[in-house]
Amino acid sequence: MKVGCSLNFVEAVVLCLILLPIGILADMPLRFRKDGTFKILQVADMHYANGKNTTCEDVFLSEEPYCSDLNTTAFLERTILAENPDLIVFTGDNIYGFDCPNPKKSLSDAFAPAIASNIPWAVIMGNHDDESSLSREDVMKYTATLKNTLSKFNPENADYIEGFGNYNLEVGGAEGSKFENKSVLNLYFLDSGNYADCCADRDFPSPGLSEVHRIVYGYNWVKNSQQFWLLQTSKRLQQEYMADAEALKLRVAAPALAFLHIPPPEFNSSMLSKKVGVQQEGVSGPSVNSGLFTSLAGAKDVKALIVGHDHINDYCAELFGLQLCYGGGFGYHAYGLAGWARRARVVVVNLDKTENGWGPVQSIKTRKRLDDANFTAIDDQLLWDLEYA
Amino acid sequence: MKVGCSLNFVEAVVLCLILLPIGILADMPLRFRKDGTFKILQVADMHYANGKNTTCEDVFLSEEPYCSDLNTTAFLERTILAENPDLIVFTGDNIYGFDCPNPKKSLSDAFAPAIASNIPWAVIMGNHDDESSLSREDVMKYTATLKNTLSKFNPENADYIEGFGNYNLEVGGAEGSKFENKSVLNLYFLDSGNYADCCADRDFPSPGLSEVHRIVYGYNWVKNSQQFWLLQTSKRLQQEYMADAEALKLRVAAPALAFLHIPPPEFNSSMLSKKVGVQQEGVSGPSVNSGLFTSLAGAKDVKALIVGHDHINDYCAELFGLQLCYGGGFGYHAYGLAGWARRARVVVVNLDKTENGWGPVQSIKTRKRLDDANFTAIDDQLLWDLEYA
Repeated sequence: MKVGCSLNFVEAVVLCLILLPIGILADMPLRFRKDGTFKILQVADMHYANGKNTTCEDVFLSEEPYCSDLNTTAFLERTILAENPDLIVFTGDNIYGFDCPNPKKSLSDAFAPAIASNIPWAVIMGNHDDESSLSREDVMKYTATLKNTLSKFNPENADYIEGFGNYNLEVGGAEGSKFENKSVLNLYFLDSGNYADCCADRDFPSPGLSEVHRIVYGYNWVKNSQQFWLLQTSKRLQQEYMADAEALKLRVAAPALAFLHIPPPEFNSSMLSKKVGVQQEGVSGPSVNSGLFTSLAGAKDVKALIVGHDHINDYCAELFGLQLCYGGGFGYHAYGLAGWARRARVVVVNLDKTENGWGPVQSIKTRKRLDDANFTAIDDQLLWDLEYA
Repeated sequence: MKVGCSLNFVEAVVLCLILLPIGILADMPLRFRKDGTFKILQVADMHYANGKNTTCEDVFLSEEPYCSDLNTTAFLERTILAENPDLIVFTGDNIYGFDCPNPKKSLSDAFAPAIASNIPWAVIMGNHDDESSLSREDVMKYTATLKNTLSKFNPENADYIEGFGNYNLEVGGAEGSKFENKSVLNLYFLDSGNYADCCADRDFPSPGLSEVHRIVYGYNWVKNSQQFWLLQTSKRLQQEYMADAEALKLRVAAPALAFLHIPPPEFNSSMLSKKVGVQQEGVSGPSVNSGLFTSLAGAKDVKALIVGHDHINDYCAELFGLQLCYGGGFGYHAYGLAGWARRARVVVVNLDKTENGWGPVQSIKTRKRLDDANFTAIDDQLLWDLEYA
């Protein structure tokens, strides 16, 4: 058997064995920069519909005549240009389905600035994305076909999983470093659904229905099966990361961030500490607790859970070592507060500078960008640091 | 090939095919009686130690000189004799490990009345069972070897599962009925652990430890992996139950009961309704919510979650259609209230009487027996009824 430039099979295998330890850069779509940083832009709740004909909510009366979805687009373009992130994460309610006669067009238009930027982007769905003629399944399927997106429909080999758009992404270490072929930062994306399964279509339980006593109202939640997949994936990634001599010197596995739309009840815990940012409305989560927080805290690698959904909450706060962060509302066709600028969260992850070049992740920091005249950056904070881990 | 009494292989197969539809009673260790009932005795928190030398807690001063573990034994013998249950379920803290120099003897002595009765019995562990020289794993392994017990160490084909003593039992329909080879009632047993993994051995976080921010205090909880196993098992059992023409006429799958030791936080929900029994102390559950309640409610077949742990709470209350029941303290070497009798919960499950004989489960009822002079029965109540399902 001949392989390419006159090597026989045995010669080719030998060459591979020689080259492998030297290091061939793994094909990872996401990787830390040569300056040791990786920056994520979170865009929460665009509520996009039909572009210039779609009006704005909760802006000053004087702004209303000139305000539309195009303001959301302009804010996104402005933020991408100024921040130049390595990944854009849309955390749901990307479109406002009820107002979308052509949901595919709304989706494409909503993500257009990301697509045009050639920066990789990832999507999870909120509770409004499937309120058009397109089913939840089809919204995710369609989104995953768009240019430059890293969004995935669902993981392979996990046919038990519920929801659509559960997946993970790996971020490789800096090129030329000992970590270049390892995922030094892991990103988990979970579908938090829309409304509690039993009552999406009715306001009151009907006495004739079976399971009438089981009615759970309100928003949906991340199910046991999704958490199981995340925990299995987290365990595998931590084992892979620690599976060589270099990594065994490390005390902790690669850190991770989790993204979803609807906050779990712990966002409202009385035990939250170190709150940075504001809470201007209640936590509109599910009326039952599905254990997501406990699973994420138990996964150990997850350092922050980042959500959208409640537009005028934009805090990060800590509970049992896990940071719980809101994005703050981004879109103009979404409720907000006139005079309280639409905003985006930026997460900057920094590698450790060692004598031998870039090492594992050293710190995870975050701040927000406001869509105001000065494009103000606020609430700089440290979410996680290797020193304190 | 010859098989037994001069049948050849083909003849034997033909005979089998003839006999099968006629019905050969499946070998099920648990089955409804010919009167259409199945009775479970719950024994919560015996706290057994060393027999007659082990003193009683929280009894009147005048009773102290004569009171020991033997009072617990006498109460168990009395209850078994009077109630003649079909299954005895010990819901943890069966022994009080700290006081047990010979834990195997303590276990054998604690379960002795059940063993002697020849009635099948099942065990889950509490937080005190492994506080002796025997590890948690070994307590469960040893228990599962005792006579007449249906306790199992853990399910097969679920190597992902956490804890020890997670298993399920099936209860066959009445002999001679169309349901005689079906499990018409399912019982799930889960290990709720002892103390939060991180801090069993220390009261304060040590700054030098990794994951110092992740300290979760207090009691442990049923993990995601255990809930995943229960949900997968529940799904399979419901599919099996509904997989014939007779069952397809039914509106609901076979009901189930879940048993564990430590109550999940929902036992303290402000939304509980229809409370029967008393709450005389706080719910001493874990400080995080692992989603157990939501998983059980989502499983749909589970109608009641029955726990121990808080000795002077003995209520059942409903939340989103799921009954949450305490056993009330049984043992004399356990805290309690002098003058508030030690007690046991009895669950009676009744089959539906149809024109064609006994059908599926019609109702699940419960009451408690007090260890007082009159062996008083109190708090009769309906937990579930097919009519309202």
